[in-house]
Amino acid sequence: MLTRIDHVGIAVRNLERAVAFYETTFGLRVVAREVQEDQGVREAMLAVAAGPAGGSYVQLLEPLGPDTPVGRFLARRGEGVHHIGYGVQDVEAALEAIGAAGVRRIDERPRHGSMGASIAFLHPKDVGGVLTELVQAAPFR
Amino acid sequence: MLTRIDHVGIAVRNLERAVAFYETTFGLRVVAREVQEDQGVREAMLAVAAGPAGGSYVQLLEPLGPDTPVGRFLARRGEGVHHIGYGVQDVEAALEAIGAAGVRRIDERPRHGSMGASIAFLHPKDVGGVLTELVQAAPFR
Repeated sequence: MLTRIDHVGIAVRNLERAVAFYETTFGLRVVAREVQEDQGVREAMLAVAAGPAGGSYVQLLEPLGPDTPVGRFLARRGEGVHHIGYGVQDVEAALEAIGAAGVRRIDERPRHGSMGASIAFLHPKDVGGVLTELVQAAPFR
Repeated sequence: MLTRIDHVGIAVRNLERAVAFYETTFGLRVVAREVQEDQGVREAMLAVAAGPAGGSYVQLLEPLGPDTPVGRFLARRGEGVHHIGYGVQDVEAALEAIGAAGVRRIDERPRHGSMGASIAFLHPKDVGGVLTELVQAAPFR
């Protein structure tokens, strides 16, 4: 069902500083920048690898304010890995199968994610403490 | 410098239960099981994707005891993402370049990791709270 590790979502306090760090230290480059108002984040996607079914990315996430999911995460745990996104071919089918297996879904239906993807989050309490995202990449990826 | 997301290392209390969950819910399969005495873990590698430069894996980590790095992580933070491993072509060269960029290295020299890889860890305090591992896959991968 999972086709790749699509991205590692990392909570950061200062997006520009984090982008500069990943560019300089690891040689990654930014391929997209977005503000996701509904998720309360400003983000940058840095490409780690390309692939026929979609690439793999480091996703750096700066909260738009303290009272957002990533803002609360930073206050509670500090900077670090916020979630893992896995590629799927069909996010709707994957959501249904995973729900049938008894895993609670934060998103009952897919919604828009980074870079035109259709995404859905699963509840970390049902995935061993890992906030897990399913990502159906947009066709152009 | 980074060629792929090699693996997501996840701390779990019960390896067999976690393996069964990832197999059943996400359709992954175990490709290697190892006990790493020096790291104090019993682990399973589940393949998410194959690739010419090496695959991508979910690495499930059960501590061999409470007084191990993963054991202390579980006591402090509970189950969840423990570290991220990125593929590199040459771990020795990568370690040198990253050290020269001012990032502290937990391992000054590469050592043996899962599935015959040469690996080295970087200090999470210098990588925005992310315990980061460099992975030069064994040739057969």
